[in-house]
Amino acid sequence: MTGRFIVFEGVEGAGKTTQIRAIADWLQASLPSEVPIFVTREPGGTALGQEIRKMLLEEDSPDIIAELLLYAADRAQHVAAVLKPHLEKGSIILCDRYTDSTVAYQGYGRGIDLNLIAQLNGIATGGLRSDLTFWLDVNAAVGLDRVRERGAFDRIEQADLSFHQNVQRGFSQLAKAHPQRIVRIDGNRSRDRVQQDIQEILTQRLGLEFQEIDEPLG
Amino acid sequence: MTGRFIVFEGVEGAGKTTQIRAIADWLQASLPSEVPIFVTREPGGTALGQEIRKMLLEEDSPDIIAELLLYAADRAQHVAAVLKPHLEKGSIILCDRYTDSTVAYQGYGRGIDLNLIAQLNGIATGGLRSDLTFWLDVNAAVGLDRVRERGAFDRIEQADLSFHQNVQRGFSQLAKAHPQRIVRIDGNRSRDRVQQDIQEILTQRLGLEFQEIDEPLG
Repeated sequence: MTGRFIVFEGVEGAGKTTQIRAIADWLQASLPSEVPIFVTREPGGTALGQEIRKMLLEEDSPDIIAELLLYAADRAQHVAAVLKPHLEKGSIILCDRYTDSTVAYQGYGRGIDLNLIAQLNGIATGGLRSDLTFWLDVNAAVGLDRVRERGAFDRIEQADLSFHQNVQRGFSQLAKAHPQRIVRIDGNRSRDRVQQDIQEILTQRLGLEFQEIDEPLG
Repeated sequence: MTGRFIVFEGVEGAGKTTQIRAIADWLQASLPSEVPIFVTREPGGTALGQEIRKMLLEEDSPDIIAELLLYAADRAQHVAAVLKPHLEKGSIILCDRYTDSTVAYQGYGRGIDLNLIAQLNGIATGGLRSDLTFWLDVNAAVGLDRVRERGAFDRIEQADLSFHQNVQRGFSQLAKAHPQRIVRIDGNRSRDRVQQDIQEILTQRLGLEFQEIDEPLG
């Protein structure tokens, strides 16, 4: 048995974290208990990556190429130490951000050459792609408002609205270029509606054997 | 006025640190006082780089591609935040390790594809090369013995002799491939003899206007 690699992408406030938690619970309840469900993220999915993530979010304006290379280092470690071993043992991986975020944020957002980013994504992943990527598409202003409501900001979230609109355009272009791999989900709706869509698509596309779940009582 | 970028390369125990200190003192004494002499190193020549250096030396066996990307990130930050600004203001930079160390250690030492390393060196440096690189060539066993005498070991220095011999072979190949840029210095001799050679070559090659220095009294 081999695992499945599911990625969640989108701007800040798109609802990735909420959906990943909900989908992990649903998979846990729906799949045979021997199927491991594994939740991870980039940057920061390994011990090394945690330190890199801290640097990336705290460092005072690193050079943009240095920043890009740090994301790539985080990814290389994540692929080698976490993603590949988990896929080999048959885990269903739910990952918060992967290569498309680098294209959207560093490429469309910061204006780094897209070929350079593709080159580094190739080096860092060794060719490992997601089986399925959900792009939670929310209006950038709506996303930022949601983040502001949470009250917590880091360096990236403080960037201005036009940066976020460029990032949004990046995800949109990626979804057009990879219609099989990337599924757009309208993230402006309620949590439950979004979750329902994701569950339906996972059920159709993953070829997993789901168990009958009793409807909750009451 | 533009600066000069001088790099010192070699295996552990080759005498780089000692020579860089001595040459910095000599340049300070020999050049007009308005010429800034700047000593730096890779990894760790910036605040970001210090954190990366710590990770690289302490982390328990990172993935070799992640390690390579961390070195590249350190270099990109160093080039953008330190090397280019210093060269623009006319500094003479003495740098402990640069791109050739990555070729020798990660390429010849760890066996990573040399084209991949060249690609990453190009991305990280944006094409910035040294004006002159001194390769302090010591027998790898001699170098390791010197390091052992110091008593301090880190992860890299604990690697075995055959790894160091491969690294040594890397420097040797680089010196053959870039005979103008890289000058081999026999580092098995006394500190003073090595220093004298370096001073002579710098005087011939750098086109700097040295001042007369009074012989020390007594």
